[in-house]
Amino acid sequence: MKRIEDRIAYTFKDKELLKVALTHSSHSGTTTNNERLEFLGDAVLELIISEYLFKYNKLSEGKMTKIRSNIVCAESLSQAASDLNLGEYMLLGKGEIVTGGRKRKSNLANAFEAVMGAVFLDSDYDTTKKVVLGTLEKNIELALSGGLIKDYKTELQEQIQKHSDNAIEYVLEKSEGPEHNKTFFIDLTFNGVVVSKGTGKSKKEAEQNAAKNYLFKDKKSE
Amino acid sequence: MKRIEDRIAYTFKDKELLKVALTHSSHSGTTTNNERLEFLGDAVLELIISEYLFKYNKLSEGKMTKIRSNIVCAESLSQAASDLNLGEYMLLGKGEIVTGGRKRKSNLANAFEAVMGAVFLDSDYDTTKKVVLGTLEKNIELALSGGLIKDYKTELQEQIQKHSDNAIEYVLEKSEGPEHNKTFFIDLTFNGVVVSKGTGKSKKEAEQNAAKNYLFKDKKSE
Repeated sequence: MKRIEDRIAYTFKDKELLKVALTHSSHSGTTTNNERLEFLGDAVLELIISEYLFKYNKLSEGKMTKIRSNIVCAESLSQAASDLNLGEYMLLGKGEIVTGGRKRKSNLANAFEAVMGAVFLDSDYDTTKKVVLGTLEKNIELALSGGLIKDYKTELQEQIQKHSDNAIEYVLEKSEGPEHNKTFFIDLTFNGVVVSKGTGKSKKEAEQNAAKNYLFKDKKSE
Repeated sequence: MKRIEDRIAYTFKDKELLKVALTHSSHSGTTTNNERLEFLGDAVLELIISEYLFKYNKLSEGKMTKIRSNIVCAESLSQAASDLNLGEYMLLGKGEIVTGGRKRKSNLANAFEAVMGAVFLDSDYDTTKKVVLGTLEKNIELALSGGLIKDYKTELQEQIQKHSDNAIEYVLEKSEGPEHNKTFFIDLTFNGVVVSKGTGKSKKEAEQNAAKNYLFKDKKSE
């Protein structure tokens, strides 16, 4: 626990709060899990990031909403949780551990939110702000530069809707490797023409990467 | 403006902030409207109400989410804005005024959020908390007592959609009393089976109560 405190640069007055923040609902023998702290922590993150974006620049309301949702989302927060090694310290039920619970993005993101909720309860808004901005520094930077788009397919769809004559299709080009460890190769096509490619350990992941590759290519030429 | 400050029990250091908070995007001649402050204010309200509910009682995360959404919503906030007479002070475009913009719920709720965002910028979290909890006291009480669920029938419909094989019907069982003071008795049925009952001074009220009784019954047995 001391290691987490070091990494987030905050020492808890009430250590029990940190323990609860790391307790998943599957953990047996505990009546208190981190769901309530997660609820609080989510609102804490939303306000801290909102305030940061508000003061950062004269960004429009729509732009701030979009960037905030790219910072306060499972993808981004699970990444931040991994950087803090939260997975290692989470209290999980046996079934949850066996099925990969320590690396599950939702568990990690929820634990991250709960830890920030715990810091807020243990201290005050301004102290929590320092902890949150310190911990999410990288994610904020990425989101501001447009690099933290969580769902590339949706993002692409939204961009394309402006030019409705383009029909998007994700075509499986091939898959390689043994059944339990396949790699999928997806072609992203516009009106049948391949515009980018993506690979991944699932079709979904490969499609996301194909969309991502297209979006990045697109952005560079803008 | 002084009147608003009196009513919310907060005096702005920067009066310009309050003016911006009351400026609708339709207002001509102003480049700055309240949309950015509304974005910030919404997050301010979410955290303050979340913190309040978290500390209020050991409410479950689901319960807190529900109650919060009944407090921080257009219906509730426009009511609070009306209590503060914000409509009278909003800066609106001519077209917006002519079409009833001073009484439009979305305008009122947005202005309320923006004013709270402005208080937050002008002061700090703890000061804003006092202002928000003072101003929304009635709304919070109502939501906690279950009185701020605006539409039980809609609520029930949404819950039922998950189990699409249930056909809901509101059946008038009987009505009693003289013409000018009737009481209506409604049976709520799922696939023809009565699951709850409601009474009221109108069919509509009786139906709402039947839905409410079902929703409450359901929650207790969870």
